[in-house]
Amino acid sequence: MAKTSRSGVSQLTQWFTTRNILSVGDFKARDLETIFEVADSLEPINLGRTSSDLMKGLVLGTLFFEPSTRTRLSFETAMLRLGGNVINVIGNSSSLEKGESLRDMGRVVSCFADVIAMRHPTAFTVHELSEGSTVPVINAGDGANEHPTQAMLDLYTIRKNQRRLKGLKVGLLGDLKYGRAAHSLIRVLALYGTEFVLISHPSLKLPEELLRELKTLGCNAVETSDLRSAIQDLDVLYVTRVQKERFPNLVDYEQVKNEYRVDLKTLRGARRSLSILHPLPRLDEIASEVDADPRFGCFDQVANGVTIRMALLALVAGRIPKAPKGKKKK
Amino acid sequence: MAKTSRSGVSQLTQWFTTRNILSVGDFKARDLETIFEVADSLEPINLGRTSSDLMKGLVLGTLFFEPSTRTRLSFETAMLRLGGNVINVIGNSSSLEKGESLRDMGRVVSCFADVIAMRHPTAFTVHELSEGSTVPVINAGDGANEHPTQAMLDLYTIRKNQRRLKGLKVGLLGDLKYGRAAHSLIRVLALYGTEFVLISHPSLKLPEELLRELKTLGCNAVETSDLRSAIQDLDVLYVTRVQKERFPNLVDYEQVKNEYRVDLKTLRGARRSLSILHPLPRLDEIASEVDADPRFGCFDQVANGVTIRMALLALVAGRIPKAPKGKKKK
Amino acid sequence: MAKTSRSGVSQLTQWFTTRNILSVGDFKARDLETIFEVADSLEPINLGRTSSDLMKGLVLGTLFFEPSTRTRLSFETAMLRLGGNVINVIGNSSSLEKGESLRDMGRVVSCFADVIAMRHPTAFTVHELSEGSTVPVINAGDGANEHPTQAMLDLYTIRKNQRRLKGLKVGLLGDLKYGRAAHSLIRVLALYGTEFVLISHPSLKLPEELLRELKTLGCNAVETSDLRSAIQDLDVLYVTRVQKERFPNLVDYEQVKNEYRVDLKTLRGARRSLSILHPLPRLDEIASEVDADPRFGCFDQVANGVTIRMALLALVAGRIPKAPKGKKKK
Repeated sequence: MAKTSRSGVSQLTQWFTTRNILSVGDFKARDLETIFEVADSLEPINLGRTSSDLMKGLVLGTLFFEPSTRTRLSFETAMLRLGGNVINVIGNSSSLEKGESLRDMGRVVSCFADVIAMRHPTAFTVHELSEGSTVPVINAGDGANEHPTQAMLDLYTIRKNQRRLKGLKVGLLGDLKYGRAAHSLIRVLALYGTEFVLISHPSLKLPEELLRELKTLGCNAVETSDLRSAIQDLDVLYVTRVQKERFPNLVDYEQVKNEYRVDLKTLRGARRSLSILHPLPRLDEIASEVDADPRFGCFDQVANGVTIRMALLALVAGRIPKAPKGKKKK
Repeated sequence: MAKTSRSGVSQLTQWFTTRNILSVGDFKARDLETIFEVADSLEPINLGRTSSDLMKGLVLGTLFFEPSTRTRLSFETAMLRLGGNVINVIGNSSSLEKGESLRDMGRVVSCFADVIAMRHPTAFTVHELSEGSTVPVINAGDGANEHPTQAMLDLYTIRKNQRRLKGLKVGLLGDLKYGRAAHSLIRVLALYGTEFVLISHPSLKLPEELLRELKTLGCNAVETSDLRSAIQDLDVLYVTRVQKERFPNLVDYEQVKNEYRVDLKTLRGARRSLSILHPLPRLDEIASEVDADPRFGCFDQVANGVTIRMALLALVAGRIPKAPKGKKKK
Repeated sequence: MAKTSRSGVSQLTQWFTTRNILSVGDFKARDLETIFEVADSLEPINLGRTSSDLMKGLVLGTLFFEPSTRTRLSFETAMLRLGGNVINVIGNSSSLEKGESLRDMGRVVSCFADVIAMRHPTAFTVHELSEGSTVPVINAGDGANEHPTQAMLDLYTIRKNQRRLKGLKVGLLGDLKYGRAAHSLIRVLALYGTEFVLISHPSLKLPEELLRELKTLGCNAVETSDLRSAIQDLDVLYVTRVQKERFPNLVDYEQVKNEYRVDLKTLRGARRSLSILHPLPRLDEIASEVDADPRFGCFDQVANGVTIRMALLALVAGRIPKAPKGKKKK
């Protein structure tokens, strides 16, 4: 195995070694910055579509007990481009059916894999698995609870596109009541003194406790149902999918869907530097005519997702790339 | 990443770089010859079961929305033996269920993979996906429409076994009405002045429009239901599976099945140089007693399928192997 | 490809090249010892989580027609850590549905893979597939018949933990009537003059014919339903799962389950050198409080399973590692 020089490894990166990535709440702004700097140094491998030997000899186990093609492929691509290998479990085809505890399963998969990325429809199952595991476990989404790597890639995309994270004005649009991606992003953005504009139909407003949490953290947050006015002075517009199942009837759903749809007309008057983001998959929330607009950043998010997962895999495995020379703190 | 010398790269091979492989109709005889020559140069890697670094650092995404073990494993083996990596989506476990457009999915998977091979039960879906993709897309079968790599591997097998493609007498046997593999092969063989013998039960004859197309192209085609006589002077016999579902009752099916079955008795009087081919899987269309006959070439087709897919992957990725020295035009 | 020196290859290891691994009955104690010695030499790659180029350029095909996450991941990890590649078929997503014979499937998959590991719910299907295959086939469990690599890893674990195989006193606990893993282990242990203590509820006793077989082979075997007394002078306690479906009612099941459960109290008076093993997954047969006890060896079995499969893959592929210097016969 190629020796990985650790001369450039700071204490901050060492802190990550063998650590689980279960919740964004476990990371301070300084930890997130470490992840982003490692991501920056690995980005050429992802975008240049070259290979690396950084993770050579290591195995990532992706345990996906719920379909999530995008997230699984992102983790697997990250590992493969770093020269590692992948084993996977998809669907319900696992020993879980035979009644094995998640704890035992974590211990067993540790005998195969050096890092585990797990997706499960039930909240906190990934914590259970991690208790048995002897290798780092990354939460790839545990039901209604969290999807921390999504929040990290969203934040990384904002940092890249806006060239800063502090003091941004961020609009969140769509289903703010149930949307897990929006909730996690709000929580990490709160670390940076973000000013929130919460744009939704009255029936899909942000939960009261999360709104209070924001205010406790000193963040400014206004609620509105008027997309056209709200969009004018935003730095970021984060759009989420409104699910049909949330509405009592199809007529209400169609009306809300049309009212909160982002198209070129909606974007009139928005800033030239606006970042339009969406966790994908999208249906009609963003019209396809917007795709060609330079402000449309959804596919950047997908590419950045691979880079962020490269950084996380390298960090938890202790395979930290050499610090690039002359790197400046952002 | 190992540098790939491009000194031996002709304009013909460069034409393929970043190109989609969606339909055999997009390729002239000269293009097919380029594919076959690249395949010839890569064959030792496949048959010798050695490894290569030609595709090192690249990722193939296999998207199979319909089971097709043979085709998927063939693509994956081709990529792995060339030193590349594979990510895959099998079944319906994809974001498609959430209503994402194929266009968006193509764009998203492009963020992970450098080449995509897609199988789908519905015609032209692969074209839709390719519109969103920023990387080359290879059609691995799109329902009733096409399976171009099957036609290419069939043609490559004929070229290897008969040592020429021009002026052959080719018999097609079985389900000529619905058989996609037979239709595609007929269309590419028509480029070489092939003389066709169409052997089928009257209810499973070649569609009229395809027969007219052949004649417009100047090909000779005779229809017959008499396998025993027809087989006498063939260079190639391409057998296809007759599906039970095509018949009003089981008695008719059994009768047709037995009448058009190829066994050692059927082969009496056939040429020593005959190539017996079948796209597989086979049921009883070719008796297992034929397997030991040197004219039986079905498993050669499977091996050649890996070689052809190696060539296609290398060509569309622009990773063209050096032209072998002293190569002669066939 | 890195040259594999064969200077250290004994005749014993050469015997394995291109051989199928279908039944433990095909191997003499001397053959098993060869496997274990190769496993010993490969163990540092597994436990050290390093990489190797021993299987570079080779492809393992895992055909799993029945879910068995643990076994599949074990084979795949073994292949990947040895530098090889993996293609897989999981579930029923195969051409089998189209009526292809297992013989044809074996021949076809041989065109892709250099070694095949197959799991199937039906006994002797793997033998059928191996008849068509031109590459070595390893039985990864064929229904009620056998799971030879499980027996080998169990034996390897006992050999490591007890530092010998001859003349041990081995207790088998749980479902001795239907448990495939227990039956296979008993058969291989019989090669070493093992003294058996068969501990089960009267309704789950070892089949008469297997008991007679043991006695014919000169092994001592006593049957008991008293776990507490039996455990006192055992070297090994092999626990198996008792399945609810075996009992006429839930009350009986619960009673048997509790009576034969291994917890810290059960272990009072057991030897300090006892090895507690279980083929996993476990439900309650071994209390989780036992996990911290140094005698608990179930997760060692999982790790040893990877090592054993490394050895088998290398042996059947003829990629035998150099014999370590100064190795002593055990």
